Amino acid sequence: MIVGLFIFTSMDTSLIGSTHSKEHSLSDSENTVHKVVIIGSGPSGWTSAIYAARANLDPVIYVGVAKQDPGPILPGGQLMLTTDVENYPGFPEGVAGPEMMMKFEQQARRFGTTVVGEDIVRCDFSNDGSPHTLHTSEGNQIKAHAVIISTGATANWLGLESEMELATTGGGVSACAVCDGALPAFRDQPLAVIGGGDTALEEATYLTKFGSKVFIIHRRDELRGSKVMQERFLNNENAEVLWNKVVLECLSTPDEHGSKKLHAIRLKDTVTGEESELPVKGMFVAIGHTPATKFIRDSGLEFDDAGYIDLKTRSSKTNIAGVFAAGDVADATYRQAITAAGMGCQASIDAEHWLGDQGLN
Amino acid sequence: MIVGLFIFTSMDTSLIGSTHSKEHSLSDSENTVHKVVIIGSGPSGWTSAIYAARANLDPVIYVGVAKQDPGPILPGGQLMLTTDVENYPGFPEGVAGPEMMMKFEQQARRFGTTVVGEDIVRCDFSNDGSPHTLHTSEGNQIKAHAVIISTGATANWLGLESEMELATTGGGVSACAVCDGALPAFRDQPLAVIGGGDTALEEATYLTKFGSKVFIIHRRDELRGSKVMQERFLNNENAEVLWNKVVLECLSTPDEHGSKKLHAIRLKDTVTGEESELPVKGMFVAIGHTPATKFIRDSGLEFDDAGYIDLKTRSSKTNIAGVFAAGDVADATYRQAITAAGMGCQASIDAEHWLGDQGLN
Repeated sequence: MIVGLFIFTSMDTSLIGSTHSKEHSLSDSENTVHKVVIIGSGPSGWTSAIYAARANLDPVIYVGVAKQDPGPILPGGQLMLTTDVENYPGFPEGVAGPEMMMKFEQQARRFGTTVVGEDIVRCDFSNDGSPHTLHTSEGNQIKAHAVIISTGATANWLGLESEMELATTGGGVSACAVCDGALPAFRDQPLAVIGGGDTALEEATYLTKFGSKVFIIHRRDELRGSKVMQERFLNNENAEVLWNKVVLECLSTPDEHGSKKLHAIRLKDTVTGEESELPVKGMFVAIGHTPATKFIRDSGLEFDDAGYIDLKTRSSKTNIAGVFAAGDVADATYRQAITAAGMGCQASIDAEHWLGDQGLN
Repeated sequence: MIVGLFIFTSMDTSLIGSTHSKEHSLSDSENTVHKVVIIGSGPSGWTSAIYAARANLDPVIYVGVAKQDPGPILPGGQLMLTTDVENYPGFPEGVAGPEMMMKFEQQARRFGTTVVGEDIVRCDFSNDGSPHTLHTSEGNQIKAHAVIISTGATANWLGLESEMELATTGGGVSACAVCDGALPAFRDQPLAVIGGGDTALEEATYLTKFGSKVFIIHRRDELRGSKVMQERFLNNENAEVLWNKVVLECLSTPDEHGSKKLHAIRLKDTVTGEESELPVKGMFVAIGHTPATKFIRDSGLEFDDAGYIDLKTRSSKTNIAGVFAAGDVADATYRQAITAAGMGCQASIDAEHWLGDQGLN
């Protein structure tokens, strides 16, 4: 289940003003073939826009309005859910996710990116040299020679109200151990990881370096994760699996600033029905991600087994000419802001070269 | 020829103080096997350090001292030569290259990276599970389970004194059209590209979007670049090739702040010997890059035809177990700060997983 979409509407296209930015005119677009259209506005989308704008390609970026649930495009991406980003290089003191995304947007607008506050809901990709056609949530059609897909992936959550509130306010709930595990709030504290697959085992093993104790909470009596991963986790003396348990609620208390912080999770035994409380200062939900590819499911693009766009080489090229992918939508492995941004740059450079090859730049 | 190494000594290990940083003790190192050693301190090296430090891997980074010419490691990397970085996402107003690298370093030190001001001059990589051995410029040996190579690549320059002075002060000389072509100083101005290969043609074609006129200056009477690239360049009405010419000198005048700006280049005809002046506001040197791999030439690592470390998959894994590569040393295509940083993150995550697989993390 995907939740949290409701908060994204705070980042609309009028948030950041700039004398250099352009707002999109829909009447123009009917007869125009854009050189580059970018779909999605996380780190990869904005980076594509920065590079494409600086290359005089007049990029248009569709940032989405999150009208659909689950929707394909989240304006600002996963970072809009992140309070403290400590690992994006260049910000030694850390930066808030939404602030970082505003800087990216501002930079893209500065060089002349056109920003449109609509979703792309369907793509008709062309493989015969004619432009690709994209359909928007407002019923508009736009045409583009090159398309960069950077719609990201959304962490799956349990779907609890108390979970979401703490996840969006830095209250001790996270879907990314690599991003958040090293935060001071989690050091030498009991932590819980929810899930039973390899990712859950990996995140839990990682967290044993920081937490005083790390519990894996799993709804069944055996883990789906591989044997070797299980052993690696259980080899840590501060590791424990709690079997047949589901999380009912995240319990929090206000800190000295009135900000809610997780102190325990309420569990239910799936066999006995018994309820209990487990004191933890961090809860890491590790039940997978969903790449935002619904709107391109039938477009002819190739996906890998997990549903991510399949990039076969080290470039951003997909199986369709003129269609490039960047960021988490094409990356099940790293999923970091900095890796997504790097991929966004690659997509823009690849698109520029491709347009050059076609004599279209 | 590689020049410009002389400026790098300004960034030594004491430049940035931090209560969290550690200085390396050589006496410790003789008996210690480090989990992760990072070689090279450009965007990829520091990003690897940030991620490895946050993963509690106690990384040690060798930033080099540039004693060798051409040396394998340039502290701070190519960005130390760059005055205005406009395309690293997160800095809407741009940032100076050296300032950006100081921020990266500060961030890596904040999380506990150990910084050593020596070069690595030779690597004995192990493929039998024992640690790798690295030899430093001071005659020390250190051991590491995982090694991340991020020594970068250096732009080749013509080797003129006037060229280097203008390149390091934002005076109108550059080795990267994608990085600098869009700067206001080059808009609607005559520009020159030096070189005759595909890269020179690509950079020159790119610059036709910005310059009033773009000259390719080539020492011979035919280009090495492909026919299709030549046609694409010459199809632009503001494109021209000047044959049989070499650059003797970059001519500059001080601007209102006393800062020297290129206004012309002095050329010599290689056939007639005749000298002439060509008024240009920008000179882009496009005679290739040299990846800094001299110190690993005989290490068993695999390189591609151009001498870059060969990464066969989308990961940072090399052909040697426990050895990872990131940044320009393994990327002949994109060579941007943001792509290098993304690769640095990948290398660190790959190293962390690999150490986990070996039970070493």
